Amino acid sequence: MFIQQLIEISKEHINQTIEVIAMVTDMKVKLTKSDKKYIDLIIQDASKRIDAKCWEYEEKETFFKELNANQAVKIKGVVGEYQGILQLTIKDIEGVKESEIDIRALIPTSDWEIESMKKGLQYFYDKVKTPHLKELLDKMIFTTHHYEKFCSYPAARQVHHNFYHGLLQHVLEVLKYAYTVATTKKLSQRQLERLIVMSFLHDWAKIMEYKQLPETGFTEEGTMLGHIFMGAHMTLNYINEIENFDSEDKLIVLNGILGHHGKLEYGSPVLPKTVEAQILHHADIMSGDIESIQSFMKEEEGKEDTFTNKLWNMGTEYYKKG
Amino acid sequence: MFIQQLIEISKEHINQTIEVIAMVTDMKVKLTKSDKKYIDLIIQDASKRIDAKCWEYEEKETFFKELNANQAVKIKGVVGEYQGILQLTIKDIEGVKESEIDIRALIPTSDWEIESMKKGLQYFYDKVKTPHLKELLDKMIFTTHHYEKFCSYPAARQVHHNFYHGLLQHVLEVLKYAYTVATTKKLSQRQLERLIVMSFLHDWAKIMEYKQLPETGFTEEGTMLGHIFMGAHMTLNYINEIENFDSEDKLIVLNGILGHHGKLEYGSPVLPKTVEAQILHHADIMSGDIESIQSFMKEEEGKEDTFTNKLWNMGTEYYKKG
Amino acid sequence: MFIQQLIEISKEHINQTIEVIAMVTDMKVKLTKSDKKYIDLIIQDASKRIDAKCWEYEEKETFFKELNANQAVKIKGVVGEYQGILQLTIKDIEGVKESEIDIRALIPTSDWEIESMKKGLQYFYDKVKTPHLKELLDKMIFTTHHYEKFCSYPAARQVHHNFYHGLLQHVLEVLKYAYTVATTKKLSQRQLERLIVMSFLHDWAKIMEYKQLPETGFTEEGTMLGHIFMGAHMTLNYINEIENFDSEDKLIVLNGILGHHGKLEYGSPVLPKTVEAQILHHADIMSGDIESIQSFMKEEEGKEDTFTNKLWNMGTEYYKKG
Amino acid sequence: MFIQQLIEISKEHINQTIEVIAMVTDMKVKLTKSDKKYIDLIIQDASKRIDAKCWEYEEKETFFKELNANQAVKIKGVVGEYQGILQLTIKDIEGVKESEIDIRALIPTSDWEIESMKKGLQYFYDKVKTPHLKELLDKMIFTTHHYEKFCSYPAARQVHHNFYHGLLQHVLEVLKYAYTVATTKKLSQRQLERLIVMSFLHDWAKIMEYKQLPETGFTEEGTMLGHIFMGAHMTLNYINEIENFDSEDKLIVLNGILGHHGKLEYGSPVLPKTVEAQILHHADIMSGDIESIQSFMKEEEGKEDTFTNKLWNMGTEYYKKG
Amino acid sequence: MFIQQLIEISKEHINQTIEVIAMVTDMKVKLTKSDKKYIDLIIQDASKRIDAKCWEYEEKETFFKELNANQAVKIKGVVGEYQGILQLTIKDIEGVKESEIDIRALIPTSDWEIESMKKGLQYFYDKVKTPHLKELLDKMIFTTHHYEKFCSYPAARQVHHNFYHGLLQHVLEVLKYAYTVATTKKLSQRQLERLIVMSFLHDWAKIMEYKQLPETGFTEEGTMLGHIFMGAHMTLNYINEIENFDSEDKLIVLNGILGHHGKLEYGSPVLPKTVEAQILHHADIMSGDIESIQSFMKEEEGKEDTFTNKLWNMGTEYYKKG
Amino acid sequence: MFIQQLIEISKEHINQTIEVIAMVTDMKVKLTKSDKKYIDLIIQDASKRIDAKCWEYEEKETFFKELNANQAVKIKGVVGEYQGILQLTIKDIEGVKESEIDIRALIPTSDWEIESMKKGLQYFYDKVKTPHLKELLDKMIFTTHHYEKFCSYPAARQVHHNFYHGLLQHVLEVLKYAYTVATTKKLSQRQLERLIVMSFLHDWAKIMEYKQLPETGFTEEGTMLGHIFMGAHMTLNYINEIENFDSEDKLIVLNGILGHHGKLEYGSPVLPKTVEAQILHHADIMSGDIESIQSFMKEEEGKEDTFTNKLWNMGTEYYKKG
Repeated sequence: MFIQQLIEISKEHINQTIEVIAMVTDMKVKLTKSDKKYIDLIIQDASKRIDAKCWEYEEKETFFKELNANQAVKIKGVVGEYQGILQLTIKDIEGVKESEIDIRALIPTSDWEIESMKKGLQYFYDKVKTPHLKELLDKMIFTTHHYEKFCSYPAARQVHHNFYHGLLQHVLEVLKYAYTVATTKKLSQRQLERLIVMSFLHDWAKIMEYKQLPETGFTEEGTMLGHIFMGAHMTLNYINEIENFDSEDKLIVLNGILGHHGKLEYGSPVLPKTVEAQILHHADIMSGDIESIQSFMKEEEGKEDTFTNKLWNMGTEYYKKG
Repeated sequence: MFIQQLIEISKEHINQTIEVIAMVTDMKVKLTKSDKKYIDLIIQDASKRIDAKCWEYEEKETFFKELNANQAVKIKGVVGEYQGILQLTIKDIEGVKESEIDIRALIPTSDWEIESMKKGLQYFYDKVKTPHLKELLDKMIFTTHHYEKFCSYPAARQVHHNFYHGLLQHVLEVLKYAYTVATTKKLSQRQLERLIVMSFLHDWAKIMEYKQLPETGFTEEGTMLGHIFMGAHMTLNYINEIENFDSEDKLIVLNGILGHHGKLEYGSPVLPKTVEAQILHHADIMSGDIESIQSFMKEEEGKEDTFTNKLWNMGTEYYKKG
Repeated sequence: MFIQQLIEISKEHINQTIEVIAMVTDMKVKLTKSDKKYIDLIIQDASKRIDAKCWEYEEKETFFKELNANQAVKIKGVVGEYQGILQLTIKDIEGVKESEIDIRALIPTSDWEIESMKKGLQYFYDKVKTPHLKELLDKMIFTTHHYEKFCSYPAARQVHHNFYHGLLQHVLEVLKYAYTVATTKKLSQRQLERLIVMSFLHDWAKIMEYKQLPETGFTEEGTMLGHIFMGAHMTLNYINEIENFDSEDKLIVLNGILGHHGKLEYGSPVLPKTVEAQILHHADIMSGDIESIQSFMKEEEGKEDTFTNKLWNMGTEYYKKG
Repeated sequence: MFIQQLIEISKEHINQTIEVIAMVTDMKVKLTKSDKKYIDLIIQDASKRIDAKCWEYEEKETFFKELNANQAVKIKGVVGEYQGILQLTIKDIEGVKESEIDIRALIPTSDWEIESMKKGLQYFYDKVKTPHLKELLDKMIFTTHHYEKFCSYPAARQVHHNFYHGLLQHVLEVLKYAYTVATTKKLSQRQLERLIVMSFLHDWAKIMEYKQLPETGFTEEGTMLGHIFMGAHMTLNYINEIENFDSEDKLIVLNGILGHHGKLEYGSPVLPKTVEAQILHHADIMSGDIESIQSFMKEEEGKEDTFTNKLWNMGTEYYKKG
Repeated sequence: MFIQQLIEISKEHINQTIEVIAMVTDMKVKLTKSDKKYIDLIIQDASKRIDAKCWEYEEKETFFKELNANQAVKIKGVVGEYQGILQLTIKDIEGVKESEIDIRALIPTSDWEIESMKKGLQYFYDKVKTPHLKELLDKMIFTTHHYEKFCSYPAARQVHHNFYHGLLQHVLEVLKYAYTVATTKKLSQRQLERLIVMSFLHDWAKIMEYKQLPETGFTEEGTMLGHIFMGAHMTLNYINEIENFDSEDKLIVLNGILGHHGKLEYGSPVLPKTVEAQILHHADIMSGDIESIQSFMKEEEGKEDTFTNKLWNMGTEYYKKG
Repeated sequence: MFIQQLIEISKEHINQTIEVIAMVTDMKVKLTKSDKKYIDLIIQDASKRIDAKCWEYEEKETFFKELNANQAVKIKGVVGEYQGILQLTIKDIEGVKESEIDIRALIPTSDWEIESMKKGLQYFYDKVKTPHLKELLDKMIFTTHHYEKFCSYPAARQVHHNFYHGLLQHVLEVLKYAYTVATTKKLSQRQLERLIVMSFLHDWAKIMEYKQLPETGFTEEGTMLGHIFMGAHMTLNYINEIENFDSEDKLIVLNGILGHHGKLEYGSPVLPKTVEAQILHHADIMSGDIESIQSFMKEEEGKEDTFTNKLWNMGTEYYKKG
């Protein structure tokens, strides 16, 4: 039976043989108690990530040795369950040529439509009228090499927005929330523009902090320096290239980027010191937390209980009824 | 010189004699070192609250003994400064008849227009279609005796929305922010309606927790039980009056009210356990914090420094330029 | 060899075949590496809870599919050990009819004698002389449908008093400790009576928060609302049914229930604001902590080490000598 | 008008001249703005402590220079009020001979009867049957030089039991609470005896940590080493003098003393590691907290508000009605 | 009587008239109760900072209006005491020409000899052999315009090293401590060199964060961005100017600067992620804390008590004997 | 193939048969799913600690039953890997006579040369000139029975200095760091001597808190009382044996020992109250943390990643490049 997406595999498939196309994201060779080699894999497609095992490692050793992480494969296997979690016992595996499959189809992707997201960016950009602020966005967002990364990177390594276009979607959410607050609370035009600029740029350096998909995880500079420092650093350098950039706007935009985690213990080296910066911080948490809960509840949909497990970053379980 | 509003008194009036109409909110008789009685007053109008002193207490003892807190007076006094803060040395003081002045003119009031706020309430109410949810709002908000209080009470004792119509303004802010998130994150219609209901009701019991303006401060049940318990308690009793109120909606709405402070250490006895409840919590903080900063910055406008003093509930100073 | 109680199984039984009667409290079907189904069970009787496995699931599939949680079974199995913990490998299993066994014999039960506990309740009830307080206890404790649940429910899901009659035993402990403090510190008769009433009622809503034994775990409203809110809510409604209930007693009793966890971060939405409420809080912790340690030390008796493992809720190990 | 006790002075005495006998506990010479010396005093008797001022310092300089702290004086003065707190403006002051007044009458004292407290000590001592434990109490409590201090020292510098016989009263409270728990929870006789011994000794070193009344405050070793270390140190040395002192009892008693503050952050270098030690800890907090609240509420009785001010060590205000 | 240094003024001068030369660092005009203007000043010299008052403000209004902060004056005044703290009542005041006094003599200054401190810098610089690391120090420390500031700025606004040459002295202390650890723990030559570079640069941006002495306090960018961000930002830009700067050294040096506060809650946006960075962090605290205690104990020397007051940043009092 | 040290075993040995001599530090008999006994061992030598398994337990049961923990064995086994960690499958095992092997060769040992460490001790001892302080060191360090333990005990159970001579090495590190600070900050000779004495003695009671190697773990008094109390207790008793021991030195040295963990929450019952005590605290953390990181990075050397795993006591990962 061919399965279109990993998400479709359910308890009803247990003990059945299925076929899927997926990307191998991790693999480890191990030894059974009787000293026979086998291999543990993690495979994913755009819909889900699951564990797989192949006991006949030795027969397929040549294949596995040439296999790279993040490569597409076609698998035939038997569905099993270990500690309540579905996994696959591989019976047959073969490579899929890049020409046969768009590798992006195997990476989790935002379910927001990409073109409308790009229009969203434009919409908020158009609200910025002050030349030096506009120029800053031109340089950091709307130049080809940045734009492409900005529109494709994830915004987190796990929990929320950790998918293709994740950064873009997150920034749009932040812009929407921040904009609603700004108009409700009658911020001045200049405050509004700075808030838009800060929202665009607050997580900009995630394109330096994370590896490019399909690779995941932190870059070396990501772990050593973090996106908060790198984002403010790059922004300051771009600002310095702009003639007559207002010096107060400079301090406010940089403080907004540095302070967007809201508290020192969350990694901001200074606190938000303007009303714009505080709005940005709350809009950022709002976006991250709500996406966390929604995506976690989707993952837990299959299980029977009334409540999800505890979501570690929120510290509680969620109610699935209603 | 007659001064229209206390806010107009500035350092330039130091040593000048002025006249104002204000409300006395607090008074204390004291002794000078030479054992002479004098009186310390706090006076306010809609624009500001300041300290005043009268050294000739003994001459006016009859007047002061009959004076009540929250009564309007006409004062002639000399402007002075103590530790950088303006105060008034009273030379003459007399009562103002209730017929001559609208006491509400002396109470700080929301600068949002009352009729448009009421329209705002209606706007969000109209989005609720489910009969039992609609009925709950009818009972708790849109009945005369509740509606009047709901539209006039403050939402806090100090720091933010601590003024006439404060609760109404705060609830509208929360509704706007929550609604933006709900539509952005594509909540179901039922989730959206519950979120609107929870936003309406989360601080409802502030009308039991605080005294009615011009009195300020907590009621006894406010201090002993708190608005979180009382709000959920009243809501549950109203729900029980409604036939066929959906039992899952009941749990979700009550959890939203109980959990709206977001963490146990902030006084919520349970954590938010739905995506609606988490949105409500963030919208509530967003509203409170941003209003805190804006109103604090307005208070600090007169001072010369580049930064405000530290705002105690936010733990930082704010940048006044830009 | 027939074993009377699970607690009697010791390391000396390893590799021996035994027979026991127990209740199945949880079961999960799993797959071996060679894709054969087996089943993991948790079984218990009044004395203990242990893990069991049955490798011959497939042969007994019909039996297991009809088995319900919390049903009594007779097991023949071999004692083994996994990571230092005894477990049972089931060789044979069959149902036990309800007529043959009192299911309550398989549920952990307070080792305090039930009749003397009920006398204890009466003893403290008799100390309450004020009519409206007496009436509150009559309504909430001494009416048949409440009394039965109040006398049989557990007071916790794990750690302490998580057994049949657990709530009753816990309330009696709290009453004893609180009463000693009240008389030592010469509380007034009214304070004493309120303290007794608050002690009776502080955990009353555990009968709504937990499922009824032999089922364990939280009800939906237990997780969503918690016993602190529900207890105060129900108490306030019962109070409102009583004519001329003193309004200060009302606030004090409700604050005592709301505040009995002692700190906001432990789930009390308000702090204890009377000396009675503070006594109740300390008596409650005293009861919970001491029972935790004693029952944990009993569990750990079999192990050879001088110290127990770390008891998670207390954060330390205990000395088993002396 | 002669006033028997400072506690009797009320707002009704404002501006009247009164006479009292009191002890001077602190004094400071200051300068007025016109460079005239005056003196600030703190005076107390058994009932209360208040501030006093004498503007005619220079005329009485000889008297004041010879005056020592903790000396009795007779004062004639005018009652005033500063920031809501009563104080005395001294018009006349003279020394009182030690022969004319029992200095202890001017020190706050337990309102428990001393002889019955001593009987209480004996009562619990008699429950200890094991010779080596009995001998430890003989050496540390029931030898004349220790007994006298143990029965007269305060148990704290402020907040609770900070009065004559305070340590004795506190230890009795702890013994009563601990004993109730021990019998309720059916501790073994040996556990019970150890708990009694630990309760007797846990604060023993307060007689080294504080100065002897009427002096107040810490000794140098009190500040540098603390009563927890000193108490365990002295106990261990006394234990080592006793032949055949059981080695497990030794560890348990010492751990009980070291651990009686319950958490590292409260100054216990190790956690309680027996059920006895945990009971002691809770009994100790119970005694301290309840006495804090009661004595604070007594102090605040005179004020008109419904709630007390915030009691700093408890972090909340208390309800004065009911 | 002419007083050479403010530190020499003691309680023995109370009521005497003295003369001093000092710098005015702050002044505020106030009103007496009888509406007469007077002025409060803070004056300092290299030895101390004290309060002064002048009641005859009105007579000297012209002089005071022209007086600037941080200007030298000659004062004749009477020594007084307020709440145990010495202050000066100014009788006469006049300006001192800049030609008559070296203004630096009136600023608190390191008691380390400047030339030997500069030699110390050179000593550690000479240990760095790797060209790109050497070049980084050349650019950031050993160029005239940086060198001068680096050698004269304070390292803190209060508590420790808040004096002329304070940054220089602090950096030398850190270098000494770090170097001892590095050699003891046998760091590689490359680790040692990086540690030296990081020690030199960790607080470099204090020359941007603070105003230049005799002015004190933060610059705008100091408050908005902080020295941690600015230091890492500037370092990265200087590194980018150096050809072939090793990319791992780059990450390690920057992480060292960003991480030198050791914990997120102390303002480091990332944790120290190398052994060098952790040594730097501890050496930095060691230097700050020990200087805090020593300078605080010096300030408290005059007072009679056995213990100092509580030092706020350390949370405890210190023992003055021994 | 004979392997000299366990550290030499690498991934390249997987599936090969090797021979090693090692010490068995822990063993547990278990059951396979087919109810066959096997044994899990932990073995170590001076270089490393690894897991081993023997499936043929039953054949070798006599040998294993007579085997004691901490006994030397010669093992022939096959190298395998489990979850990325190397382990050994034992094929043959036999005892090694004590005469054939120095058991100390199998215990992890400081890589500092023992004779030079002893010279280091002498070097710092010689700096103490004050007779009573010198005598204290003579009694507590330089008497044969203490000296031997002091020079051989570990300073921790895990993480840092948890090896043969670990205490000695740690104390020398602390002495070096503290001495550098003391001379840099120009402490008086008396302060310096006290600091040396406190550094020598601060962890002295680890020889009572830990078991003697090759045994590991806490003694009973170690867990119940802790080295902080025991160290101060023993020191005070030794001080009391010394005639004319200065009473201020006594308090300062004891406070230094009691306070060396720096904060109450880390187990110090009092805070450091002298500059010496604060230096000691920082030197102690410096030594512990840096050794933790270095030894952890050595353990993680073999793995391929750029960063280590998270080091639990430091809360972060470390960068392995550079």
